Amino acid sequence: MSIKPVAGHEPPYYAVVFTSVPTGRPEGYGETAERMKELVAEVPGFLGYESARTPGGLGITVGYFRDEESIATWQRNLEHQAAQKRGRAEWYESYSVHVAKVERSYDFERE
Amino acid sequence: MSIKPVAGHEPPYYAVVFTSVPTGRPEGYGETAERMKELVAEVPGFLGYESARTPGGLGITVGYFRDEESIATWQRNLEHQAAQKRGRAEWYESYSVHVAKVERSYDFERE
Repeated sequence: MSIKPVAGHEPPYYAVVFTSVPTGRPEGYGETAERMKELVAEVPGFLGYESARTPGGLGITVGYFRDEESIATWQRNLEHQAAQKRGRAEWYESYSVHVAKVERSYDFERE
Repeated sequence: MSIKPVAGHEPPYYAVVFTSVPTGRPEGYGETAERMKELVAEVPGFLGYESARTPGGLGITVGYFRDEESIATWQRNLEHQAAQKRGRAEWYESYSVHVAKVERSYDFERE
């Protein structure tokens, strides 16, 4: 997990917000999540990734991409598709995905 | 905190992604966060809110709004502005905000 927020990029770019409630059966989840982080970093136009999970509660992951084509490349990845399928079968009680075009961004860093 | 993901709405709508690293000086933060949740819920066009924080790590909050006008209404709120100022002075080491127009969304719920 990144310990720094992903800084804003020159807009427009895309944010894919993935919000999930876990089933409490995490077998295999950690390894798969690590593998997905490696894989997505290889996608041309991938800008960054951030993730937070409240213990026992909601998880939110946001992936940032340069354009629609970079999102489509990631969606076509077969290992990613297999992980999504396993997620629906085992890991997630529910989730929502919001695909959004970032129009502006702000960053703050303590001096 | 919501325990369910905010479901997708009819696009387009807006997602405001707020990612933050806390300073470790949370005095007053909890009360203010609760107050902000009450206040934002009164904004016309506010669609929902979800938040997750990894202990000792990154926090991600996503607010969903119907349109730019509803975001602007929230930004103009004076109590919200005071909370943002206090956040920069006390609570946050760093943060990023991404304002994004949601083009499509997907929901999954276990049957």
